[in-house]
Amino acid sequence: MGEEVKVFGYWASPYSYRAELALKLKGVSYEYINEDIFGNKIDLLLKYNPVHKKVPILLHNGKSIVESVVILEYIEETWKHNLYLPQDPYDKATARFWIKFIDEKNEREKVTNEACEYMKTLESALNGKKFFGGETIGMVDIVASSVGYFIRVTQEIMGLNLLSADKFPQLFQWSEDFANCSIVKESLPPRDKLLPFVKGLIAKYQQDNAKA
Amino acid sequence: MGEEVKVFGYWASPYSYRAELALKLKGVSYEYINEDIFGNKIDLLLKYNPVHKKVPILLHNGKSIVESVVILEYIEETWKHNLYLPQDPYDKATARFWIKFIDEKNEREKVTNEACEYMKTLESALNGKKFFGGETIGMVDIVASSVGYFIRVTQEIMGLNLLSADKFPQLFQWSEDFANCSIVKESLPPRDKLLPFVKGLIAKYQQDNAKA
Repeated sequence: MGEEVKVFGYWASPYSYRAELALKLKGVSYEYINEDIFGNKIDLLLKYNPVHKKVPILLHNGKSIVESVVILEYIEETWKHNLYLPQDPYDKATARFWIKFIDEKNEREKVTNEACEYMKTLESALNGKKFFGGETIGMVDIVASSVGYFIRVTQEIMGLNLLSADKFPQLFQWSEDFANCSIVKESLPPRDKLLPFVKGLIAKYQQDNAKA
Repeated sequence: MGEEVKVFGYWASPYSYRAELALKLKGVSYEYINEDIFGNKIDLLLKYNPVHKKVPILLHNGKSIVESVVILEYIEETWKHNLYLPQDPYDKATARFWIKFIDEKNEREKVTNEACEYMKTLESALNGKKFFGGETIGMVDIVASSVGYFIRVTQEIMGLNLLSADKFPQLFQWSEDFANCSIVKESLPPRDKLLPFVKGLIAKYQQDNAKA
């Protein structure tokens, strides 16, 4: 009788966390499968995401949906309660604009002046609201969790002061409010597990770059 | 009484062409304004797209929508006839997956083995269908017009043989069928105008790279 809803993810990935958070907001039960993306267990990735071979993958009644933002749109359209996108087409376009904005910068991952411009622009998008979605979490907030939580861990490790209450008071407050939502809290990878993991990733990245 | 629908575009941009094609498919009348993006007339860009300062911009009753794919989603949701996205959430997710795939590769614009892999994957997405959308043009086709028309012009100038009937018979046939749709034909920038323009762009790009 029950639906099959599975998420193939990786515990430290902001992208697979997006899919999980969306399902939790909808109250949809799902099975979470942690893929060992650094190991050899890529058979499932080849089967369900042959083009990119990446997590997250949403498996819904045997059909696989991939790319975190595509998954979020799919979840919103399949379970039509607790909507996290605005209904008005213009407001929806504005949300999608910010989602695209957040993701394009994430892909560059430059810790430079550009990052500062990025934060400034994001701060302006909050424009006095508690969340990007207004009074409650919306799809922009889900996508921006990579900024609100994962960047804060990264800057702590690297000794950077990118997102701070001083520089970006609204955005900083948002990241606190976001992290304090009960549904977010129970989904976030624990800080004491994430910190050494990201530290290892950065060290590896620096080592690889030193060789090149 | 009438609605205000304006497109700020650039005649040789595959991205502003997307917005125009979508409006034409819907049969929505609009005013087209060609922005001199290489000149100094950027006041409108600053006003309507302050974050990216780029075309295309859709202006609908005083509200501006930017980013070509966001514009396409907006047009689909605002004028709910001649739908170009499938209605089924899974089919819609599949379309969005391909749209994202096409756009991510476009951003890299590498003419390498990667481009060959890209074509191969796109060819597999056609999977015997006439258009990506099935029997008629869909949103994936609109987005893929950068491949079907603009890449063919580019490869001709550069003497490359990237998309050919030999190598990718299905994709090549699609690009022919697409270019032969009457609605596409009347929207495409004329080949004899586009060719020298792209030639100039490539020469400039090569010159800049030689200096760097």
